[in-house]
Amino acid sequence: MVEGLGERRIIEILLDQLEVMPRVTVPFGDDASAVDLDDGRLAVMKTDMLVGKTDVPPCMSLWQAARKAVVMNVSDLAAKGVRPAAILASLGLPRGLTEGDIEQIGRGLNDGAREYGAYVLGGDTNEASDLVISCAAFGTCEKQFFVKRGGARPGDLVAVTGPFGKTAAGLKILLEGLPASSKVKENLVNAVLMPQARLQEGLILAQTRAVTASIDSSDGLAWSLHEISRASRVGFIIEKLPIAQEAEEFAEAHGLNPAELALYGGEEYELVITVKAELWKRAEEAVKKIGGRITKIGLATGEPTILFKEKRGIVPIEARGWEHFKPHSK
Amino acid sequence: MVEGLGERRIIEILLDQLEVMPRVTVPFGDDASAVDLDDGRLAVMKTDMLVGKTDVPPCMSLWQAARKAVVMNVSDLAAKGVRPAAILASLGLPRGLTEGDIEQIGRGLNDGAREYGAYVLGGDTNEASDLVISCAAFGTCEKQFFVKRGGARPGDLVAVTGPFGKTAAGLKILLEGLPASSKVKENLVNAVLMPQARLQEGLILAQTRAVTASIDSSDGLAWSLHEISRASRVGFIIEKLPIAQEAEEFAEAHGLNPAELALYGGEEYELVITVKAELWKRAEEAVKKIGGRITKIGLATGEPTILFKEKRGIVPIEARGWEHFKPHSK
Repeated sequence: MVEGLGERRIIEILLDQLEVMPRVTVPFGDDASAVDLDDGRLAVMKTDMLVGKTDVPPCMSLWQAARKAVVMNVSDLAAKGVRPAAILASLGLPRGLTEGDIEQIGRGLNDGAREYGAYVLGGDTNEASDLVISCAAFGTCEKQFFVKRGGARPGDLVAVTGPFGKTAAGLKILLEGLPASSKVKENLVNAVLMPQARLQEGLILAQTRAVTASIDSSDGLAWSLHEISRASRVGFIIEKLPIAQEAEEFAEAHGLNPAELALYGGEEYELVITVKAELWKRAEEAVKKIGGRITKIGLATGEPTILFKEKRGIVPIEARGWEHFKPHSK
Repeated sequence: MVEGLGERRIIEILLDQLEVMPRVTVPFGDDASAVDLDDGRLAVMKTDMLVGKTDVPPCMSLWQAARKAVVMNVSDLAAKGVRPAAILASLGLPRGLTEGDIEQIGRGLNDGAREYGAYVLGGDTNEASDLVISCAAFGTCEKQFFVKRGGARPGDLVAVTGPFGKTAAGLKILLEGLPASSKVKENLVNAVLMPQARLQEGLILAQTRAVTASIDSSDGLAWSLHEISRASRVGFIIEKLPIAQEAEEFAEAHGLNPAELALYGGEEYELVITVKAELWKRAEEAVKKIGGRITKIGLATGEPTILFKEKRGIVPIEARGWEHFKPHSK
């Protein structure tokens, strides 16, 4: 049964059935796929599906849901250093929707795409029991600038484009009704309802050639580290967890572990990157120039382990995060 | 409510929300979308979603459903004269599926893609109430060979790549249990379960430069004619309906109108094209060379009407066909 399998196993079964394209430029399982345009460029594409029942928390409007469906895909292109040019959207629409609902969905798709410079070029509508918004994002990039998951080397620095834990805390407010001061609440809930793709950061970082691996963190920080680890055959020592201040406050108020929120939350869209140590300054300054920031959180190692240096000692960072079908058990 | 709106109105509402890309090469609503690669080529993409409840008749295996989800997308690229290079697949998987089911889906996706020379490059898995297989197809073509819906001119010949009516008859067997001799039944049911995209025909026809407009017939022959009519601002006089012999036999046995089966069935994947009259021979011979066939069925006119010259007189071909939410009432 699917509920017993877990997403990881389902993907394995699927991949076992697929023949590999000759001269494939990006291996299966990276954030996005690519076709060589044979002129130094890659055509890069990604598809990611939003399903109402699992991806749309209460209080999220249809406009926000449609926008998020776009952002999810843009984020994957961003991690690869690719600017999205076009979005396609296939919709599964439940019978109860009104004209106003459809309008919100259309506007959310458009606004999500325009926010990142892309356009919605087409799509498909269907009737379905669940709300389903399956977007495909397309863009091109110079082949030499495409950043995979598999290029990290021992000695590289690992960094993130922003703090973690806000989405996990926001979901606790939305799903479990945990209270928070109005300012903290707004900030945390906003992280859930209005996720941002780090497109400018991803684009400029790719140009620096300092980044050896990159992934977005939609499955959580811990999971992202494990994915780079698996693809690059490196381990990590994390020295500093990038916990958002609001998440820290929220965790303290509710007796929660802030590290847990930051590591295993998921549905965040920061980039997790590895950077050649000698080119750190270059990467840092490039991102600063476009108004962003990268924060060093640790080091890539030759060991196959992902460890977190806590005050109390060294603990392993587990390979779990948000997984459809099998939450918290990858 | 969505059920009161109909797919056409839903698409209108959605399109009203979308900003148009500058220098857009293909208008909204064509079979596929395109981004200019600025070197004489277009990046062409299409997404089409298969939903279990509306698109998968009983007796269709998961392997067939997954293959069909690919064929639906390949067919749209075929109509534009574009060879598919890559397929992405976003899956919504109901909880009841087994490992074997997932394997069938993976194999169906792969086999569907390989049948047309493409590869499945990636995708996304989710839990959903319905089975949802949303594929995106990608390919490139020389800009000058891309065939839109909007280029038909009065005097052009209208033609199809094969006979119609088999799918409608096959669905009557599968959904309504109508009987047929085993040979006829096999042929008609096969049209439903194993649809074929006319890729070779679409590719070679685009190369001839004889084709002025092209569309696939997944919404039915009548609907396809109305779409070309709308996009090209021409009308049609249809002189000969391309009815499949098996559909004709089946209709006769059950007192059905064979013209109804051929015109308003849908879920067929023949190409409906318009051809410059003076280049008909060129188009016909090009298709013959690759083992295919085009059949002239009528003429494009300057009138805004689509008429069928029956033995009993001239009757209008209605703008209806298969439409999600609102079957037989577009």
